Formats: sequence, structure tokens, C-alpha cells
Amino acid sequence: MDLEPSLRRATVVGCGLIGGSIGLGLRDRGWHVSGIDADDAVAARAVELGALDVVGIDPLATITFVATPVGAIPAIVRVALESTTGAVTDVGGAKTSIVDAVSDPRFVGGHPMAGSEQLGVDGASADLFEGAVWVLTPNATTDPAAYALVRTVVSDLGAEVVALDPARHDEVVAVVSHVPHLTASALMSLASGRAEGQRTLLRLAAGGFRDMTRVSAGSPGIWPDICAENREAIVAVLDELIGSLGQLRTVVADDDRAGLLERLEAAQSARINLPSRVSQLGAVVELRIPIPDTPGVIAQITTLGTELGVNVADVQTAHSSEGDQGVLLLLVEADKGEAYRDALVALGYRPSLQALG
Amino acid sequence: MDLEPSLRRATVVGCGLIGGSIGLGLRDRGWHVSGIDADDAVAARAVELGALDVVGIDPLATITFVATPVGAIPAIVRVALESTTGAVTDVGGAKTSIVDAVSDPRFVGGHPMAGSEQLGVDGASADLFEGAVWVLTPNATTDPAAYALVRTVVSDLGAEVVALDPARHDEVVAVVSHVPHLTASALMSLASGRAEGQRTLLRLAAGGFRDMTRVSAGSPGIWPDICAENREAIVAVLDELIGSLGQLRTVVADDDRAGLLERLEAAQSARINLPSRVSQLGAVVELRIPIPDTPGVIAQITTLGTELGVNVADVQTAHSSEGDQGVLLLLVEADKGEAYRDALVALGYRPSLQALG
Repeated sequence: MDLEPSLRRATVVGCGLIGGSIGLGLRDRGWHVSGIDADDAVAARAVELGALDVVGIDPLATITFVATPVGAIPAIVRVALESTTGAVTDVGGAKTSIVDAVSDPRFVGGHPMAGSEQLGVDGASADLFEGAVWVLTPNATTDPAAYALVRTVVSDLGAEVVALDPARHDEVVAVVSHVPHLTASALMSLASGRAEGQRTLLRLAAGGFRDMTRVSAGSPGIWPDICAENREAIVAVLDELIGSLGQLRTVVADDDRAGLLERLEAAQSARINLPSRVSQLGAVVELRIPIPDTPGVIAQITTLGTELGVNVADVQTAHSSEGDQGVLLLLVEADKGEAYRDALVALGYRPSLQALG
Repeated sequence: MDLEPSLRRATVVGCGLIGGSIGLGLRDRGWHVSGIDADDAVAARAVELGALDVVGIDPLATITFVATPVGAIPAIVRVALESTTGAVTDVGGAKTSIVDAVSDPRFVGGHPMAGSEQLGVDGASADLFEGAVWVLTPNATTDPAAYALVRTVVSDLGAEVVALDPARHDEVVAVVSHVPHLTASALMSLASGRAEGQRTLLRLAAGGFRDMTRVSAGSPGIWPDICAENREAIVAVLDELIGSLGQLRTVVADDDRAGLLERLEAAQSARINLPSRVSQLGAVVELRIPIPDTPGVIAQITTLGTELGVNVADVQTAHSSEGDQGVLLLLVEADKGEAYRDALVALGYRPSLQALG
């Protein structure tokens, strides 16, 4: 879906690393980008660096990105919804609390899984999202057209969109990001404590330890918010990790060699098969899905695709030629088109599948 | 200390990645290297690759490296001590059990902290130890001359020698290597289990998670031995880590923002200050230390240097001009020469310190 030039207007609220990179990326692609920041000097710097055309909120914005600290997001999203008629999305690292607090058809929760060692707008880059996964979390209130628009824009920034239920997102990021970060910090502090007064002992730390603790060098300031917003999932995953380590402790203490080998082999196999970030999308087919005007349709259809592991190349909405009902057009990888269609049929949809010429 | 050519004869027992790399490195430096392996084909391959001159045990070897799996080391070290009059060292990843089992003046426990993604003699490389830390664990029985010889040879392979008490070594490697490895495996298995049936979800794993779990892709086969040999230290460190994660869990569950920030900031500071592997050695001074013929002198002097964080460039033994008593000659970094001397004096030694021209 190519937006016509007059629609390429965006607002970015919060001009840090992520907001600044969104601004740079959109302006590279011909968008007019307005933006604000809690710190006027940061907004001015964003203009200077070319991340914004102008400081301010654009009432004509087709899309507004809220890229502030997590705690401030719901209130700012509501202001953005009142200030424009366009879609609004955010970039917060925990989604359930935000999505539950907002509940508006034009709001689509989002989370770009991208970062940088650099902080703030000075670290921003137009290609920060190239090849990165960008999670969108449509829910029962999400309008399919708003979802399709946000999806198109973030895809255009180079990101690969993965649609997830908000709670599932929070669980997965607790597993692959939040708890690993806390664990890295725990390992680093433990080593530092044990080396007390003999810092040179840490010279024994080889690449593996350095790799495992690298993230603990990141800025701690963002974590109280993240842990507060995603508390439930983080606590559950920490409990599971503590349980796993307790089992490993027993296996080692009992010299249960077979049990140890079994556990390490399972982990080895999982690590070797860890999917790469960028999906390889070959031939695609088109799914046309008439969508009833009932809540939660876009959330159900897109998260089903994620559950089935289907790579989706594009999502658009259109009006049906047979009346008021909308139609959802999905471009999906050819190999999984039939499985996706059959699963949709099982849910009561009436999709049609066709090859592309 | 340059060994005269006739003394450059070594035996390597066990021709895997480490043994093969020792052979390649020594032959590059003009040594004659004999060697054996439990698998005759591996020994033959080591000759083919230039890691050995000849298959066999050299009765004239000045030094024998035992680079077999940990469980087999004590018995093979004893055979090597009976077969030669030279020094014997090993490369096992846990030291207390080995050093306690052997107890011979000519044996010096060792552990090169080097590895490679590649396995076996085909992955061996003459420069595997360049810049790596190589721990030596002299104890109460170690002969200073044997220590000085082993130290010279492994330094010549490009490694940086760190002298540690065997139990302290085992604690430190549990902290910086063994427990991190087990933790990486636990994190990887947890993520894999949570993504059950939705492997694509692991595409959300960004660089931090990939870094943290990388070591879990390594070969599990070596770990039952390592965990058995270093059981006590590993269990103690696992207990401490489980305790730390439990505290973090409480901090998150209670939304104790100040407590969380404090912990993450301590870890950040420790990670940023993690010393680099290679010490920068500038000007050096010479310490001459008359050494009484009592047990444990070399262990006490060298591990004291490690405790004080002194970089040592060279260790040699000599006979005193005033009689039978030996003298230990240490080249140490100039900045810490006086502190080292004073600490030695406090232990009853009579060291002299002099600048080098």
C-alpha cells in the first residue's frame, strides 16, 4: 500500500533513540514529520539532526508515534487520539497495561525490537529498524484499517511485523529480553562480589562471560518502568528460571551425568535452531478475507498468522464490491497459504486464496 | 628465560583442540614435539597437521602437557612423571581435585582459558593462546624451578600467566565460566519451552538474548566431567545466583524501584569496569627474592602477586651466590613493585627491588 503524498504526515512524540530514528526514517521516505519532546532542547536537536521538519503536533497526521517512557504512554496516546483523526501507535516495551488503558479503534499497540548502544536522538538512525522485528498488538477494539496503516508504515521503515496478542507479547519479551537482562546483571554482580579486592581475577572472564553480561552495561534508568509495566510476566519467568537453575543444581550436586547431558543437549539443539531475525520470503499468494463488522477480527486473523508461523508480506483493507462489508487482503508466503486459509475457515471466515501473476 | 635448543623437547598427551594447538605453537618455536592420543587416528592426524613431530612419549621431554579429558588427568600425569625427569602440567578446567590427587614437586596444575568454536585437532591453531589467560596453580609441593619452566613455556605461547591457589581458581571459573554456561542453557531451554509450537516467536530474540545464550550451542559432552570435578564450587555459585535472582524477583514484585535501580547500577558499573583480558605492561622492575627450601614458597609468592593485581612479566630461578639457597627473579610492573616487595617483607621474605637499565 503506497500512501499518496498528501497523507504522508506524521507526528512523533518523544524524540529519543527510537522516536528520532522513526523521524529520520520517515523523512528519508518523503514524509512530513512533526514532533515534540518533554525536553525542548531535545526537540530542537531533533530538528537540527533532520529527524523532524518542525516542532509541534500535526493535526493532519495520518499516524502518530508515541515514543516516550512507558509510564507516560497511555495519557499521551489519548491526547494524540483527540488531536488527530489518524492512527496512533506506541513503542512501549510492555503492552498489556497500555492497550488495556487506551482501548480505541484507532490505537494499535506496538514495540520495535531494535536498539543501539547509543542513547538519545544523537544515536538515532534512519535504518535502525532495517531487518528488526516490530511487534504490533491489535486487540478486540482495533480497527482493521488502522492496523493495516500502521503495519504498512513500519514495514516501510524496514521492519518485519509480527502480530501478537498483548499478553503473549509481554510473556515473550519477559523471556527473551527482560529476564535475560536481570540475569546478566545478577551474574555480573555475583562475579564482581566474588572478586572483591582482586579485580584482576575478572581477567579470567573469557568471551562467553563477556557476551553474557554485555547487556548489563546498558542504562539502568529504563528498567524500573519496564519492570513495573511488565511485572506479572517478569515475576513468572523469573520463578521459572529460578526453578530451572534449582534443578540444574540438583543434577550437578547428585552427579547425575545423564540428566545434565540431556538438559544441555536440549538447550544446544534449541540454540542451534534459534530462528534468524529476518524471514526469507519467497513466492507469495493473496488471501482475500471478507471481514464482518465485529470486534477483534483483525486481532484474531493476524495473531492466528503468527501462531501458524506464516510470514505476511502485506496487509490491506478494502471495501467489498458486494456491499458495505470490508475485505482484508493479505499477501502471505505461498507455502503456508493453504494452511492459513484452512485455519481461517475453521474459525468461520470465508477466505479465498489466489496465486499472484 | 630462553631454553637452549637441546632442552626444547616436549610431549603432548591428548591431541584435541588444546593439545594440538600446544603442539603447533611449540613446533613453530623450534621445539621437538612428541605426542599420543587415546585415538591412534587422532595422533596420526596431529602429525599430518604438523602438531606433532612423532607419535610417542619422549623420555627426554623437558615438559609434558596433559591435555586429556579431566577425569583421566591424574593417572596420566603420574605416568608422565615416571616417564621423564622434566616438568609436567595439565590443562584441566577444574584444579583442586587434580592437584590434590597428584602432589609432586615437578607437577604444576594449569588451565589455559582459551577455546574455539571448532573442536578437535582440526580446529587447532598455533596462535590459540595469544593474549589468552593461562592459569597456573602451584601449591605446597611445587618446585619453584618447575613452576618457572612451565611459566616460561606457556608465556612463550603468547599466554598471560595468572598464578592462583587451586581452590580459588575453581571458584573463579565456576563464577565466570561454569555457572554462566549452565545459566545460558537454562535461559535457552526456558525460551524454547515457552515458544512451544510457535518457534517463530523466538524471532523476537534480539542481540542481547543471542549473546547470552551463544555458549549453550557448544558441545555438551565436556560438561559432565567439568561439573563432577568442580561440583562444590559450581553448587555454591548456583546457590548464590538463585539467591540473587530471588532477591531481584522480590524487588520487581514489590515495585521497589530504588532497590532495582541500585542493583542494576552496581552491575553496570562492574561490567563497564570489567578488566580487559590483556594487561598493558609498561616499565618493569626486578624483584630478587631469596627462597628458603620450605614447601609452598613458589605458590605463596606467585599467588600473592595475583592478589595484589601485579602484572608479572617473567619468573626465573637461580642459585644464590652466597650458598645453596635459591633465588627467585621476578620481572614485575614498575608501579606495583614496591607494594609487592612490602607485602613479601610482611610475610618474612627478604626481597630486593631494582630498576632495570
